[in-house]
Amino acid sequence: MKLTLLGTGDAGHIPVYGCDCKACLTAKEDPSFKRGKTSAVVEIGSKQLLIDGNAPDLLQRFPPGSLDAIWLTHYHMDHVQSLFDLRWGVGESILVYGPDDPNGCDDLFKHPGILAFQTPLRPFFPIEFEGISITPVPLAHSKVSLGYVFETTRGGVVKRLAYLTDTRGLPEETLHWLIENPVDLILIDCAFPPGDNWRNHNDVVLAKSLFNKIQPDAMGLIHIGHKLACWAMDNPDYFNDHFFLARDGQEFLL
Amino acid sequence: MKLTLLGTGDAGHIPVYGCDCKACLTAKEDPSFKRGKTSAVVEIGSKQLLIDGNAPDLLQRFPPGSLDAIWLTHYHMDHVQSLFDLRWGVGESILVYGPDDPNGCDDLFKHPGILAFQTPLRPFFPIEFEGISITPVPLAHSKVSLGYVFETTRGGVVKRLAYLTDTRGLPEETLHWLIENPVDLILIDCAFPPGDNWRNHNDVVLAKSLFNKIQPDAMGLIHIGHKLACWAMDNPDYFNDHFFLARDGQEFLL
Repeated sequence: MKLTLLGTGDAGHIPVYGCDCKACLTAKEDPSFKRGKTSAVVEIGSKQLLIDGNAPDLLQRFPPGSLDAIWLTHYHMDHVQSLFDLRWGVGESILVYGPDDPNGCDDLFKHPGILAFQTPLRPFFPIEFEGISITPVPLAHSKVSLGYVFETTRGGVVKRLAYLTDTRGLPEETLHWLIENPVDLILIDCAFPPGDNWRNHNDVVLAKSLFNKIQPDAMGLIHIGHKLACWAMDNPDYFNDHFFLARDGQEFLL
Repeated sequence: MKLTLLGTGDAGHIPVYGCDCKACLTAKEDPSFKRGKTSAVVEIGSKQLLIDGNAPDLLQRFPPGSLDAIWLTHYHMDHVQSLFDLRWGVGESILVYGPDDPNGCDDLFKHPGILAFQTPLRPFFPIEFEGISITPVPLAHSKVSLGYVFETTRGGVVKRLAYLTDTRGLPEETLHWLIENPVDLILIDCAFPPGDNWRNHNDVVLAKSLFNKIQPDAMGLIHIGHKLACWAMDNPDYFNDHFFLARDGQEFLL
């Protein structure tokens, strides 16, 4: 199984429109520092699962027949924006899994088109997909949100990768589950530098405290805002191979 | 004054995802037949007004400082989709004018960011902008919608261009106004071929009946669906220089 990050930025992405901060200027000069809105594609054999539907090139990148399912973390616009285009396609439906949020986003449920929204997922009830187990775990956000833990077992060895966005901190039951079920890699929402304590998203101090509590092998930060990207340029020693800012296009094998 | 069509397609645009109809295949082979979601930019001297905010490359095409205002026809997603990215910019606000729709779209009004939503426009009360008069006129759609009539006067000669989408037919008072105030060019919603009588959008027979009633010099069809594009390929004689399918990138001078 391979997870590829299609984007690692927050709703404003990097560079932010009109911004001349150090992180945004760097991204304008060198596209490898750009951060699209956070989403990922998971490849399992010949199957492709998309986590969130916000990639601006979603329809081009995933031609008809190439997507086996879409898993949504939640129904905020910056995570489902491209589904408003995809739904008007024709042909085979695409399975869409997500949290139990009867409101969805705008009129997505009213006019689903080719999007086949499935029964909402139940937290901590894993779904088997092509030999991989995917466990939804509740997150702490302003809209009902689920993280997903991917689990493989080979020769008795269990490997887990957790994808946790959007969230600020973690609900007690999710924290407990992640401690009880050791995770190799956590990719987690971290929008802000220290002291930028907006609700709904982690700042980097809070993310590091979660790292220390859960003790995964590694934690990669996603849903990164430009202020955190600036702060990270000034504080490189805060990061290392086990606690790092993930990059667009970065791949993780499980 | 110059109006450039950034897109002339409906919400599903052309080619439609997964579709192999004649119009969609042609557009795949020759990008000049593609139709993005309908929107336009109006240039008046050095000023730029955007009509609707749905262009996928909006943030790249209109760098910070280049947009003097955005005029919205209505708050359906396929007309405001890119504003959900633009709002998170920093720096100067962008004036946004639109119809009186307290619901807006999703959380645009709750989190407007750099979008400065102005008092809703009053139908038939023109606004002066850089020597151009812009008159909002009510349309007939499932969400409160306004068309815009641009008017110039040079040497006593009045010229008018009407941009009318989304609509099915026209409200009586708008029809009356357009007959009383002769219009040189009408760009109008026409999504469907004859007999494809969905609510909310014109079919080509209805559009032609409006042409005959209003008698503008010319009528260009916009918000075109792939079924109409197919039908037009089979029925070229239905169209001429005065009643035509507009094209992406087409420019109109007033």
